[in-house]
This record gives sequence, structure tokens and C-alpha cells, in this order.
Amino acid sequence: MTSQGDFTFDRAIAVVRRAGADGSRVVFDAMVNPGWDIMGNANGGYLLAIVGRALSEATGRPDCVTSTTHYLAPCPAEPVVIEVDVVRSGRRFATAIASMRLADSGREIVRTMATLGDLANDPGGPTLMFDGSPARGPGYPRYEDCFVAGGSMITDFAHLHQFLGTRLDPRAARFREGIKSGEPVMRGWFEFKDDRPVDSLALMLAADAFPPAVFNVDLAAAWVPTVEMTVHIRAVPAPGPVACEFTTRYVQNGLLEEDGTLWDSAGTLVAQSRQLALAPRS
Amino acid sequence: MTSQGDFTFDRAIAVVRRAGADGSRVVFDAMVNPGWDIMGNANGGYLLAIVGRALSEATGRPDCVTSTTHYLAPCPAEPVVIEVDVVRSGRRFATAIASMRLADSGREIVRTMATLGDLANDPGGPTLMFDGSPARGPGYPRYEDCFVAGGSMITDFAHLHQFLGTRLDPRAARFREGIKSGEPVMRGWFEFKDDRPVDSLALMLAADAFPPAVFNVDLAAAWVPTVEMTVHIRAVPAPGPVACEFTTRYVQNGLLEEDGTLWDSAGTLVAQSRQLALAPRS
Repeated sequence: MTSQGDFTFDRAIAVVRRAGADGSRVVFDAMVNPGWDIMGNANGGYLLAIVGRALSEATGRPDCVTSTTHYLAPCPAEPVVIEVDVVRSGRRFATAIASMRLADSGREIVRTMATLGDLANDPGGPTLMFDGSPARGPGYPRYEDCFVAGGSMITDFAHLHQFLGTRLDPRAARFREGIKSGEPVMRGWFEFKDDRPVDSLALMLAADAFPPAVFNVDLAAAWVPTVEMTVHIRAVPAPGPVACEFTTRYVQNGLLEEDGTLWDSAGTLVAQSRQLALAPRS
Repeated sequence: MTSQGDFTFDRAIAVVRRAGADGSRVVFDAMVNPGWDIMGNANGGYLLAIVGRALSEATGRPDCVTSTTHYLAPCPAEPVVIEVDVVRSGRRFATAIASMRLADSGREIVRTMATLGDLANDPGGPTLMFDGSPARGPGYPRYEDCFVAGGSMITDFAHLHQFLGTRLDPRAARFREGIKSGEPVMRGWFEFKDDRPVDSLALMLAADAFPPAVFNVDLAAAWVPTVEMTVHIRAVPAPGPVACEFTTRYVQNGLLEEDGTLWDSAGTLVAQSRQLALAPRS
């Protein structure tokens, strides 16, 4: 259920179950690690991966097939406590709710509701795909042509990329210089710098690890706080980098949605995400 | 906050707050009304509207800006109890979790997490729309050309349409005769038969009130149980019927997503929905 080997991501999302579980409630201690932040606030996908680990341990299911997280407060690098309430435990799926709080102040950071399963051993059913991986179509930036997120992007603000090998479409990666593609689309590839395999927990990180698609349109490239993010894990990824495409269609009255589709190296759909966020203000 | 007048929908989603609230928990009694079902199971959007009403009353906010519901068990027409826990109550948004159980057996039917606000009085922010209402573009079925859901569709299985004026794209409405458009798309218009205004609670019903988009492709037109549905209310609708478009892109290993976009008569985006559902089996 957990990946093997000594990888930075696994150390950063480790959870320790407290003894003496109270009925359907399981409590974990964890540490929001430094360096997984953007401008000092822990990345939302990183927080979700910690919560996902706790949900998985509490329910005994490897995959958060569908998870929804409401982001309640910015998170510093501090010890946290995660309480998981198992709502229902069925044969195929289990549903649970997790709350992450700062251990010191008790401030709640995120609340997540998820239905978990075991996709590698799921009974499955029909497949009918009406769209293929964009990474196999024309116009998608090739892995080797993408910009690796690095340099001042890491040192100045998006610190979490120091652990990732995030690669960005060169047409969409120059927003910091004021060069914008004009399209609310961010494409690229996700992997870890230390070659940790991308599993369903890593996909939850990947769903929120790219610069917002709206940085390439006529809006300030400023903080885009997530109100809510839902991630559907659709398959366990094959080895290799994951092609990620994020798009926004509607920025309306200060709220926007960003939709992600993530595909593995075999061309299989592995995740879809949608978040509702506050539009950046200049 | 509640609509005026004596409308069927308002009677069907009425909730009665119990006296003696316990801290941040508020408890409501309600009745899942007969006739709002498909094949005997209460429609998921109808249940969500009842829960939305309770969430709204408990938090004092009219609009479930983002709500996510996990469907745990089929629901008969029976008395239910809804418990709402207010997670956070801020200036702009409030976050809460609701659980609906059958009053008799205690069986949990749905669990919903939502962040609520007041869209008509929201501070707002920038608007940049990268797509307009499809109902204003070519190829969208005109209101007057659509089939009103009725006849044997209502008497045989989709009973809830007796209260609605749901209108379906004639190209996509004949799946019961085995005539399929071949596209996983369902378009049409939503309104109430008794002209109740469509507000944000009605949009939550509309998000799950149409036949599944996959009934028009090579899958059985059988039950498509929702695992999880997220609805974003993006604006309070102007008067008039709401144009609704639902699409599925990926049916993979027995799971599918269905995305909805809903537009009011003024051409404003009023809601987006996405559900994860089990693909029908023949």
C-alpha cells in the first residue's frame, strides 16, 4: 500500500497512528515539512497527500478514488493532527472524513471527504474513452522540450518544486517575465526529482502543483487561493512521468474553476481534478 | 433567503429545525417526498436540494457555492433527519458538513460538505470568460424544439419529471427507443412546471435531473449510481429556463465522470457540476 524506498515525498507525508482508536475515529500525528510551500504556505496538493495517506491508513484502502478538500486556513510548516472518521466501510468502497489541525493552536487547516477503493483490484466494468491523452496528440509539449521548474522560481516563491521534476510547456512558463501565452492553459509533466514512483497519493499532489492556468491571461500572477478541490483518481499510473493539463474556462465575479486531466506514460487517464479558487487581484 | 409562494419544490425540500441546538450542530427533520424518484429511489439532486436547504438555514447563507455529496445508500420516500455541523463561519464564506439519515432505521443516505456564501451580495472580483453559453451558439437545441419529458418516461421510471418542465434535445431524447445520438452529450432546459423561480437550490436539483449523457452511446440505459457529485453555484440565475449541458468524456473500468454546465436566460454561467458514477451494466 505504501511505496518502498527512502523517498523525500514519503518522509514528508508520513503519518503516525495514535494508539487507542475511539470507535470509527482514528487519529494521526504528522509534520507539515518545510520546503513544500509556495510563498511560505504549504502547497494544497501536498497537504492533500498527507491527508490522503491518513485516509488510506484509516480505511485500509490504497486509493482516494474521489476526494474533496475545503481549504480553511493557510498552513505553516508545523506539527499537525489528523482525525479521520470512517463514515462507511463497504466491500468495494469506504467513505471517510478527515480534519487536519495545527497541533499547537488547534486551528483547522483542511477538511476532506473521500471515498476510497483499491483500483488495481477493482471489479472494474466497461471502458469507452471519448478523448485520448492530449500528450499523444499534436501540439502537446514534448517532455524533453519543457522547462524544468527551477532557478528563481524555486528560490523566490514556489519552493516545493525543489523536490519535483515539474516540467512546464515553454509557451506557458514565462509568465513571470510578463510573456503570456494568452490562453488559460498550463501543460507539462509531473515526476519526482528522486524518481519516487507516481502513485495515487502523488497524483493528489500533482493536481495542485502547477502554476495556475490563469497566469497566462490578463490577470495578475498573484495568489490564487483554493476554496475547494476535488480529485478523481481514475487508475494507478504506469511508471514514468505524468502528462498534466490544466485549463480554466470561466473567471466570473472573482471565482474561477481550474480543471486538470492527468495521463500516465501508457496513455491511460489516471486522474481528473477540479478546483474552485479565488481569482488573483492585482 | 427562501423563495416566496406555494410551490411543490419548496414543500418537497422543507426542513424543520429542532429546538435546542448543541453548539455548532443543528438538527433538522424533513420528509423525502414521494414522486421525486427514479425507479423508486429518490433522485440525487432532489436529496441534495433538501440538504442544501438545511445547510443554508444552519449557516444563514443562501448559496451552496461549492458542495460535494457522497451517496451512501438508495433513499426511499421516508422521514429523514439532517445533522449539520458548522466547520467554520467567516465573513464571506461558511463551511459545513451535513449528514442525512433515515429517521426510522438511522441508515445514512448522503454526506455533504459545502462552503456557502451570498452570491448576490458577494464582494466579487474580475470576470474573464473564455467560453460563452452554448445555448447562444449554433447547434444548441432551441427551447421550443425540445421534447418535454413526459408520458411513459414519467409513468414508467423517471417520476420526478412530473414536477419539472425538463426539456430534452430531440436528438438525444430517444434513447429508450434504442435511437442514440452516438455522442455522450445531453442538452436541454430546466424549469419547474409550476413556474417556481430557479434559485441556487433548484440548480442543485437540475445538476442531477437529466438522463445520463452515456444513454446516447453504446452502453446499457440502466442505473448510473452516483458515487460523488460536486456542484459549483457560480451565480444567482435570472428568471427563465436554464440551459443545461452534460457531457461524459471518459468511461474507464466501470467509472465515469459527467460534467454539467448550466446557463441562465441572460447567458450567465450559473453552475458547474461534476459527478463520478458507476457505469451502467447490461
